[in-house]
Amino acid sequence: MNFNLKKTLVLTLVLTLGFATQAFGQAALQKVMQERGLTEKDILAAAKTYTPTGGRDEYVVFSSGGQSGQVIVYGIPSMRILKYIAVFTPEPWQGYGFDDESKEVLKGGRILGKDITYGDSHHPAFSETDGEYDGRYIFINDKANPRLAVIDLHDFETKQIVANPFFKSDHGGAFVTPNTEYVMEASQYAAPYSTDYVPIEDFNDKYRGGLTYWKFDAEKGRLVNDESFTFELPPYSQDLSDAGKGPSYGWGFTNSFCTERYVGGIESGRPPFEAGCSSKDTDFMHVTNWKKAAELAAKGKFKKVNGQYLITMKQAVKYKLLYLIPEPKSPHGVDVTPDGKHIIVAGKLDSHAWVYSWAKIERAIKKKKFEGKDPYGIPIIALETALERSVNVGLGPLHTQFDSEDGVVYTSIYVDSRITKWNYKTGKVLDMIPIHYNVGHLMTMEGDSKSPDGKYLVALNKLSIDRFNPVGPLHPQNHQLIDISGSKMQLLYDMPIPLGEPHYAAAIKADKLQPAVRYKSGWNSRTDSRSPYRTRAGRERIERKGNKVDIYGTLIRSHINPEIITVTEGDVVSFHLTNLERAQDEVHGFAMYGHNVQLSVEPGKTASATFTADKAGVYPYYCTEFCSALHLEMQGYLLVKPKGYKDIKKKIVEGHKYTKSDYETQVATNIATQEIINQVVGYITERNYTDFAIVVALVEDATDQLGFADEAKKKSEAAALKGDYQNAMLWANQWWQYQVKTADLGLRAKTHLDENGAKKVK
Amino acid sequence: MNFNLKKTLVLTLVLTLGFATQAFGQAALQKVMQERGLTEKDILAAAKTYTPTGGRDEYVVFSSGGQSGQVIVYGIPSMRILKYIAVFTPEPWQGYGFDDESKEVLKGGRILGKDITYGDSHHPAFSETDGEYDGRYIFINDKANPRLAVIDLHDFETKQIVANPFFKSDHGGAFVTPNTEYVMEASQYAAPYSTDYVPIEDFNDKYRGGLTYWKFDAEKGRLVNDESFTFELPPYSQDLSDAGKGPSYGWGFTNSFCTERYVGGIESGRPPFEAGCSSKDTDFMHVTNWKKAAELAAKGKFKKVNGQYLITMKQAVKYKLLYLIPEPKSPHGVDVTPDGKHIIVAGKLDSHAWVYSWAKIERAIKKKKFEGKDPYGIPIIALETALERSVNVGLGPLHTQFDSEDGVVYTSIYVDSRITKWNYKTGKVLDMIPIHYNVGHLMTMEGDSKSPDGKYLVALNKLSIDRFNPVGPLHPQNHQLIDISGSKMQLLYDMPIPLGEPHYAAAIKADKLQPAVRYKSGWNSRTDSRSPYRTRAGRERIERKGNKVDIYGTLIRSHINPEIITVTEGDVVSFHLTNLERAQDEVHGFAMYGHNVQLSVEPGKTASATFTADKAGVYPYYCTEFCSALHLEMQGYLLVKPKGYKDIKKKIVEGHKYTKSDYETQVATNIATQEIINQVVGYITERNYTDFAIVVALVEDATDQLGFADEAKKKSEAAALKGDYQNAMLWANQWWQYQVKTADLGLRAKTHLDENGAKKVK
Repeated sequence: MNFNLKKTLVLTLVLTLGFATQAFGQAALQKVMQERGLTEKDILAAAKTYTPTGGRDEYVVFSSGGQSGQVIVYGIPSMRILKYIAVFTPEPWQGYGFDDESKEVLKGGRILGKDITYGDSHHPAFSETDGEYDGRYIFINDKANPRLAVIDLHDFETKQIVANPFFKSDHGGAFVTPNTEYVMEASQYAAPYSTDYVPIEDFNDKYRGGLTYWKFDAEKGRLVNDESFTFELPPYSQDLSDAGKGPSYGWGFTNSFCTERYVGGIESGRPPFEAGCSSKDTDFMHVTNWKKAAELAAKGKFKKVNGQYLITMKQAVKYKLLYLIPEPKSPHGVDVTPDGKHIIVAGKLDSHAWVYSWAKIERAIKKKKFEGKDPYGIPIIALETALERSVNVGLGPLHTQFDSEDGVVYTSIYVDSRITKWNYKTGKVLDMIPIHYNVGHLMTMEGDSKSPDGKYLVALNKLSIDRFNPVGPLHPQNHQLIDISGSKMQLLYDMPIPLGEPHYAAAIKADKLQPAVRYKSGWNSRTDSRSPYRTRAGRERIERKGNKVDIYGTLIRSHINPEIITVTEGDVVSFHLTNLERAQDEVHGFAMYGHNVQLSVEPGKTASATFTADKAGVYPYYCTEFCSALHLEMQGYLLVKPKGYKDIKKKIVEGHKYTKSDYETQVATNIATQEIINQVVGYITERNYTDFAIVVALVEDATDQLGFADEAKKKSEAAALKGDYQNAMLWANQWWQYQVKTADLGLRAKTHLDENGAKKVK
Repeated sequence: MNFNLKKTLVLTLVLTLGFATQAFGQAALQKVMQERGLTEKDILAAAKTYTPTGGRDEYVVFSSGGQSGQVIVYGIPSMRILKYIAVFTPEPWQGYGFDDESKEVLKGGRILGKDITYGDSHHPAFSETDGEYDGRYIFINDKANPRLAVIDLHDFETKQIVANPFFKSDHGGAFVTPNTEYVMEASQYAAPYSTDYVPIEDFNDKYRGGLTYWKFDAEKGRLVNDESFTFELPPYSQDLSDAGKGPSYGWGFTNSFCTERYVGGIESGRPPFEAGCSSKDTDFMHVTNWKKAAELAAKGKFKKVNGQYLITMKQAVKYKLLYLIPEPKSPHGVDVTPDGKHIIVAGKLDSHAWVYSWAKIERAIKKKKFEGKDPYGIPIIALETALERSVNVGLGPLHTQFDSEDGVVYTSIYVDSRITKWNYKTGKVLDMIPIHYNVGHLMTMEGDSKSPDGKYLVALNKLSIDRFNPVGPLHPQNHQLIDISGSKMQLLYDMPIPLGEPHYAAAIKADKLQPAVRYKSGWNSRTDSRSPYRTRAGRERIERKGNKVDIYGTLIRSHINPEIITVTEGDVVSFHLTNLERAQDEVHGFAMYGHNVQLSVEPGKTASATFTADKAGVYPYYCTEFCSALHLEMQGYLLVKPKGYKDIKKKIVEGHKYTKSDYETQVATNIATQEIINQVVGYITERNYTDFAIVVALVEDATDQLGFADEAKKKSEAAALKGDYQNAMLWANQWWQYQVKTADLGLRAKTHLDENGAKKVK
């Protein structure tokens, strides 16, 4: 609301101020252009990407984070990175892999019983409804240890990781079917399905590729292993996939390389994998019928292996679920057109994009028009039977994405370092633009959906070399934003990727995402349910059972409750901390010396940290998010006593003593502070503040803080009545702390009203 | 060179094209402004920050990454993040905490013998020579587990982590003395110096604060524990520090909060820490004489404890090394002016910045003009003795940085959410600008040096709330770039921080950084010496000693040598991989299934991964950096045989057989490809390509690739001569693969020449 309002105001300004301002701006602009060596083209690109304070991006991108194991979120057109979502790699800022709740998620991704603390994340895919991104979930795979992760876009958190029960690597994931019935994951490097040793000499007979269709329960937001099925495939290196839609709905397409089944051995004088895996002119596109396979699985036609249905090659052939079609060698992307009628594939060592016709493929399947079988008995549809046309797009074509204009597509050209715009219906090349350098995937806005938006294209370049200030031998990647709204492509922006090597990315209309800013109080965000470890203000407690100590604590500006905790050496200690805040962005962290504890506790969340207090000692803890002016004072101590330690009963000797006069001075300050607060409150309430959602939220938060101030005031007065001026003074100071927090909020609200043209209404 | 050339060309363009182009640009610009709701002020801000492709930033910022444990590198004015440097937290993209070499670095940061897999990084500081940033090193602390890290700016890698031998937390680090003689690290939450349990009731007597001066060996680039010394300090919460310079050279300043020595206990009805730690009106600035302390240490005046000199409070008082001065309560920054004559401190609960005079402090020390002693016998210099003036700058002042103009400073105002520009010499407030929201530290260009540059200011805001597209309950931080080159501050840019909560940052002139883009071949980058595990092309080998298997391998576009490795269950396997590339940005990665192995091997680097092959099976491995068109084929297998497994001697059955005709077809392709390469080479060499450093590098790399092609050609021909067309074909294909790599480089070089106005010279 607020930004729209600003936008309106700004527009009015631009339209009414007219020539005089322009002239002023023009001179200032020319000066900056000369100083910084900018062309008018640069200024136009700047205007198309620059997003002023409070502005919103039109699209939100979810990019693979490559070997960082994470997902990178950024905005288009501003190209500002908004978040790294922790997925496969523990990440302390998010408490991911540190709190007990997220450790459970990571546990799902264990390989051979071992924790894996990274991922090689490759291809993100949005959940879809009727072929359109629905903004509910995003999936991403790990190539190194074949796994899939589910991220909920309700809160941008990873909820589930599953390990493939058969594969030893994957690459062709994640790709979703048009209603997210299934998420596709294809293996990469062939390996035995068992976890046993199998000699490499048995490669052709006992090593296997494969393609898993993971069933997704959209209501629960979880992949369901025992409703999923895997196609056993030949030991080719299966690669990327895409699901059919429209007329090709129900089918999936997966390409491959090294259908030579070559096994390297450069160490023993054999030509290396790269020589033997690219010797033939063609590899195979795999065509799979997931819809029929699912029906047959439901009828009990396939055996369950490792909890999943396994469709053997023999069964796949028998039930007409699997076909092969030659495709140019060593391809990367396989891309179904938005209407589902064509499939575009390009080989990285070729200079053509090949357009396959689904109608032709379907006809060949129906008429059993095959040119033969592969060594595993899978029917092969001849290239000339399936092909619509091939188009010379440049050396090293890699991946194709779609424009909003019918037939228009963009292909990334790796070797030539450029993007080619062409029409797959006419075969005409329309435009080319150089990129910097060696583009892998590319992405258009909602480019994998059935109605791509066009507008922008991002080239995910593998090398940046000389594009940015140098940062040592390990360079950032370079995502280049290209304006594709006109007939000629225009380079708008070079964006360095500071962490990880993205492989693929997907962009969604920003307004499809409406994530929460807080949790229901006491929430386990990983299971999306009330935490059994939640607690409320005033109910904080420490429970002991044997050597197990459960601390049910709370966090609020600016204290942790409890503050002093004593346990005994050998105790298994669990902190369960609930953030009591309701205010947006009021996160608290929790770190403790020596125990590898670091939590991120967003408003409403309950997060736990369990460890063994295995060494007697003194362990300070504190809040790790700068949450208020008294943030540094948000602290406590875990005291671990040696076993058998005999307590000597002592009282804490106060480091500083307060008198009645100290108390009265503080009270006078508080009364003066309250007057200032009243003035700010008056200023706000005299204006149309209820028209500003952010100010309403601030006022609510301020009201809460004043409530707390009142509680502290009462405690202070009670102590003073008893003549206990030590505690009277301390509580009076606490009362004042809450007043300061109130003032902070009030001043922020006032500034917001001033900056956004609030009107006096009273 | 290249960018400057471009800049020159661009300037010429701007200056000569004149009105016609401007008119065109103006209309197009107006259209974009209207569509995107941008004002002319926005366009001016865009022009001041937008950096076109290949452009360089003027300053490079090193920002703390907060609880992410890392350091964030970004450019000013583009505000693009260039790199996350892994420091305290393992990070797989960089192989940090995954390769043996970096594991050794992390080992230095173990706490009580335990690995800590995160840090709460707070305050980065550049190494200095004569009070100026020298661009050699950057230091940063970890608050949660009191540690310091050293990052070498030669390659932007973390080289050393040291754990403080006394403290249980720190906050006041890192700050350096003017010639990086020492790096200051002050403790935060008082705790016993021993690792034993000490009851909280003994807080006043047995808990201690402290300040360590870490000796830095600039030649070795390492902190030296046994030449470092620690001041024992009272159990106040020591906070930030700064080193004196000019007249105050030899002294250090450290502020504090909770000099009340209050111990909380909200769980037992006591007022919380926040109440008791901010009840007094003032806390203490600690003034320490490090120069004299170092001299006394060298004379053997102090005992070594935990390997370091420990200066007790008694000794510090006796030798006149330590003084206290009251300062406004709960301060954050303590900032020595560029001339070293004043120190500015502001209390977060106050509305004044307090300017102390070093001359007055020095005089008081000389004349022993004290107002008394603290409970630990430390002399206190009265506030009125030391103070020059106090200036009302706004509610919640936090940190002050310096302008290039004498006397002009900027203070971050936390509660008021603004920056105040004022003059500490006149006490006059000059300007104010609101920020969004709740600014912690701020930073000007080279603002901690003795000659700050002014120009830009960054506000490190703690809350972003409504500034960006929403990304769930955990929000990014907001770094706002402000133009301070004029008399009024101008907001230029809002930059979200996508990972971690930065506390402080430091900006250096970009041209002071000239990092390497490659290592000497066979380099251990963490010790900065030749790796004993390096190897060269043709010298790859596997060495076995008992159950220890050392693999001396190499990485090059696009194969790993060795490709097939067989070991036995229980073997301890070490991969030692050297990247043979010399080309900039040609990084290879290395990941393997199931063993948590992920290396980043930059050109020249040797990186190792050691693990126990504890389960028989088949483990694919591959390169994780998209390095060439044949990147996916850069793969291999680790085969782990069960113990006692009996080999059945078999030969690999080729998946695909090649004929003489296949061979001849491939050779014909290669000859045709060579012709295209020759054309590209001709195009390049006819031009003044030697004027373009990047093209010269590409040509060198291409020449290497052609050399490799020639080797493969010879192997191919030798096999053909023997009638072995299988291998003849495979090597012929390998020959072609190298040709494709050559073409890739040649085309990139050609594009670069075309885009940068190369001239035909032949």
